[in-house]
Amino acid sequence: MSDIKPVTQTHIITADCPSRPGTVDVVTRFLCEKGFYINEIHSFDDTAVNRFFIRIEFRAQTATDFSAEAFSQEFEQRASEFEMQWQLASSPYKSKVVIMVSKHDHCLNDLLYRYRTGDLDIDIPAIISNHPDLEDLAKWHGIPYYHLPITKETKPEQEAKVWQIIQESDADLVVLARYMQVLSSDLCKKLSGKAINIHHSLLPGFKGARPYFQAYDRGIKLVGATAHYVSDDLDEGPIISQGVETVDHGYYPKDLAAKGRDIECLTLSRAVRCHIEHRIFMYGKKTVVFSK
Amino acid sequence: MSDIKPVTQTHIITADCPSRPGTVDVVTRFLCEKGFYINEIHSFDDTAVNRFFIRIEFRAQTATDFSAEAFSQEFEQRASEFEMQWQLASSPYKSKVVIMVSKHDHCLNDLLYRYRTGDLDIDIPAIISNHPDLEDLAKWHGIPYYHLPITKETKPEQEAKVWQIIQESDADLVVLARYMQVLSSDLCKKLSGKAINIHHSLLPGFKGARPYFQAYDRGIKLVGATAHYVSDDLDEGPIISQGVETVDHGYYPKDLAAKGRDIECLTLSRAVRCHIEHRIFMYGKKTVVFSK
Amino acid sequence: MSDIKPVTQTHIITADCPSRPGTVDVVTRFLCEKGFYINEIHSFDDTAVNRFFIRIEFRAQTATDFSAEAFSQEFEQRASEFEMQWQLASSPYKSKVVIMVSKHDHCLNDLLYRYRTGDLDIDIPAIISNHPDLEDLAKWHGIPYYHLPITKETKPEQEAKVWQIIQESDADLVVLARYMQVLSSDLCKKLSGKAINIHHSLLPGFKGARPYFQAYDRGIKLVGATAHYVSDDLDEGPIISQGVETVDHGYYPKDLAAKGRDIECLTLSRAVRCHIEHRIFMYGKKTVVFSK
Amino acid sequence: MSDIKPVTQTHIITADCPSRPGTVDVVTRFLCEKGFYINEIHSFDDTAVNRFFIRIEFRAQTATDFSAEAFSQEFEQRASEFEMQWQLASSPYKSKVVIMVSKHDHCLNDLLYRYRTGDLDIDIPAIISNHPDLEDLAKWHGIPYYHLPITKETKPEQEAKVWQIIQESDADLVVLARYMQVLSSDLCKKLSGKAINIHHSLLPGFKGARPYFQAYDRGIKLVGATAHYVSDDLDEGPIISQGVETVDHGYYPKDLAAKGRDIECLTLSRAVRCHIEHRIFMYGKKTVVFSK
Repeated sequence: MSDIKPVTQTHIITADCPSRPGTVDVVTRFLCEKGFYINEIHSFDDTAVNRFFIRIEFRAQTATDFSAEAFSQEFEQRASEFEMQWQLASSPYKSKVVIMVSKHDHCLNDLLYRYRTGDLDIDIPAIISNHPDLEDLAKWHGIPYYHLPITKETKPEQEAKVWQIIQESDADLVVLARYMQVLSSDLCKKLSGKAINIHHSLLPGFKGARPYFQAYDRGIKLVGATAHYVSDDLDEGPIISQGVETVDHGYYPKDLAAKGRDIECLTLSRAVRCHIEHRIFMYGKKTVVFSK
Repeated sequence: MSDIKPVTQTHIITADCPSRPGTVDVVTRFLCEKGFYINEIHSFDDTAVNRFFIRIEFRAQTATDFSAEAFSQEFEQRASEFEMQWQLASSPYKSKVVIMVSKHDHCLNDLLYRYRTGDLDIDIPAIISNHPDLEDLAKWHGIPYYHLPITKETKPEQEAKVWQIIQESDADLVVLARYMQVLSSDLCKKLSGKAINIHHSLLPGFKGARPYFQAYDRGIKLVGATAHYVSDDLDEGPIISQGVETVDHGYYPKDLAAKGRDIECLTLSRAVRCHIEHRIFMYGKKTVVFSK
Repeated sequence: MSDIKPVTQTHIITADCPSRPGTVDVVTRFLCEKGFYINEIHSFDDTAVNRFFIRIEFRAQTATDFSAEAFSQEFEQRASEFEMQWQLASSPYKSKVVIMVSKHDHCLNDLLYRYRTGDLDIDIPAIISNHPDLEDLAKWHGIPYYHLPITKETKPEQEAKVWQIIQESDADLVVLARYMQVLSSDLCKKLSGKAINIHHSLLPGFKGARPYFQAYDRGIKLVGATAHYVSDDLDEGPIISQGVETVDHGYYPKDLAAKGRDIECLTLSRAVRCHIEHRIFMYGKKTVVFSK
Repeated sequence: MSDIKPVTQTHIITADCPSRPGTVDVVTRFLCEKGFYINEIHSFDDTAVNRFFIRIEFRAQTATDFSAEAFSQEFEQRASEFEMQWQLASSPYKSKVVIMVSKHDHCLNDLLYRYRTGDLDIDIPAIISNHPDLEDLAKWHGIPYYHLPITKETKPEQEAKVWQIIQESDADLVVLARYMQVLSSDLCKKLSGKAINIHHSLLPGFKGARPYFQAYDRGIKLVGATAHYVSDDLDEGPIISQGVETVDHGYYPKDLAAKGRDIECLTLSRAVRCHIEHRIFMYGKKTVVFSK
């Protein structure tokens, strides 16, 4: 059946709205009428808050022109009846991701490897750090490195520069890959739903500083990491993914940190992948993640 | 929005057909037109064989009468255009599950617990065994126990009785919960897609007899179990679920078996749950499992 | 080498003392001089607090008489030089385990199955509950069931009866298998190091009541359970084992609870196994667990 | 207790011999008499073949001179009575690891990161490849890269060069980090116990070529990787470590490969770590691994 073979372009539509009959149909019928083929469909109905979420990956049957504008105008007429918030993305999906980092480079190194090999389909227009240490690594990958030191006094200026770089990069996502500074409330708000942080504990356990030391003191038998959207309320942002490994009494804080590094890399890259593939909905303090 | 609160009855429609545009729409539009609300939708498109699979859980907006017959007649008209194979199930979904067992009772005990507490929404019309040992356990749960010994000579007669019990029970599913006899090719065919076996290894590793001994000899560092549909080709049936745990050099066959028992219980009950919730499609040597 | 084949009796010695040279030798040399064969040896040196822990399983070369008294008198002379706290256990190790439970019976059912099949080498002299519901289950296993209702007013009396049963049972271990009452500070102290509780969250996350509801509200992506020794400080007792599974946005509290039940069973039984095999040292707020 | 604080040098002794009484004591008593402090002790007794294995990490109480020669001469006298094979290693343990690779660089990149950050305490005197592609990566890390193309005809010569590099590097370990050539029987023998390969399946499932394609065809629900010592019998070498992740019907071979890459990296680096920390005994077709 040659007409459904992969063609040049695929599209992803994501939408959410209050739950009511016809929410699936309004999207799928439109796609059918326009002659699109649905590759993949996920939906979820949060019965606790009566909200509906859907993600559809689709493609034209033949490699014809696709006008996002025309699609959007037509679809909006139907979507508005359902008070639907929706986005359309079309291949190539390559997202622009700005990475922020301090001195620990394991997550950065992991993300750069996935960037370099195409495992993560992203561009990295900028790496921002409050330390100069990782410039060589950035350079080897041909990525601009912005060394923006920070002190209590210079925080507003530093964050202004950070924000400027993010804007000028036209970034779709900011990844705090072990950036060891607390963002101001103002910057958190600007980045809402667009910034992912990796915290090195199984939140809500061990919030705040030095979680591996806290975990050691508590004598835990599982160590983990949590990727979450940045929010104004530190370590309370909506969780995207969590990873975990078993440990025992023989793990001192440095051993927990060593084991944790691998978990952090995997957990963060999984969250980034879900974000750039438009698989995540953030609402309230939670996420819906239609993971592969 | 009171109109979408849970009502008396929910329904599950599952369907598969050759991939072509409109496969989603033919189902979702029909449900929309009939005023149904979609709780959950999963689809998958196997691009290697161009086949489409969908499972939708839906409900009426209000607690009105539902005629499966009328639904089926109407829907079949549309489905036939797509060469769609489809089934409809309506709540209460309680499946009839016949369990076959020999002497090891860990899987049986686990299934009985889940049956007794309602964790698995099933009826168990019969337990069949080639040994008398587990009759007490069956009795305590109030389930008829059929002791059908088997020898090489009596195998055809024994299987005839087994088949009779399955038929008279009107069983939706037969579970081989460590039934240590190889079913005849004939019985396998009769049970195709309706019988789940638990094999105590990570298939395709360690097919055949005494897998824990084979695993011990090979010095494996992971031990596991595989639940699969019974097929004519021993230990080659379509895989539904697999479970695994780490082990080390200190695990002798009896230790592997002990650790394996827990994995077998979890892996088998997961497969049974997926089956009775109509989450599995079997096609060729594979399954599509829309697991929760 | 027939002289090292399994013989009638094996023994386990566990010991801990301040770290200093010779701590291993004082035990292993003694065993060697007495002609014992060492099956298994584990040691750990907590360099943070300079404390040494060792567990040795050993046996005589031939099936001769073993006098625990003579062994103890002789060994104590050497151990005392090292300020060593030590215990000796000899096969059959069958421990007496009193189980306390409320209405949820999944952990109880799991422990009873392991008891009935010998997977856990224990006797269960008593099951204590503040509800009458699980008496039938106890009876089927031939175990005395004590229904001791509790109110705020009768708590001291109820706990006095509980303590009396524990003492009269000569219990080695008390297992709180989802016993939904907070023990008094006094009873906690009496049970220090001898009572294991299962908490249905990954402590220290979601302490206190209704952890599955807390976890749901927080939007977690991993659900887990924690087995710990009971201490005066609720949900802060030394952790023995933790288990975990992945979940997603589709898990409502009841779904988390269902998935959690399996994790609770596995995590609790693992902790009980380690305890009865003398694999755990409790010190301060932590444990050393020489797990298999 | 200042006398047991970490001092300059630690040592690891590993030994194995036929099982008989006194095997632990002959080592621990010697260490005690010489005034050493034992940090960590692991032993295992394989009762199926009556063989004993022990690994002890120890240190002097004070930072004095240590003569490996004197230690060895003295200890050998006692060890020989037990037909003990033993090795001594002293800190710094930095092992020399030669890495062989083809075009897939995920395992190489992972090992290089762990080398660069000191997570793996190794030197890498050479990277050998049958392709030129990864020279840049090697150069950035300052490691000599030997491009040794291979054809059916040139295999003997190529392997001779490989062997020469390994010898001139004085390599303690050779890691086949997705080196896609089958080593000759001769080279396998030379490398016995000194070369680790990563196979991208859960051996013994999917031996041979293109395991991810085999796994896809079989419809597996778990994908994994196996690190093993190279042996003459392809994919049958003694297993060191295995890793696994869940997958479903939606994973095509390329998706299995993508998920597999992370598992391969973790599984291989774990095996390498165990090897360089002298935690592995290879005997027959198996390993004893005293993992942390």
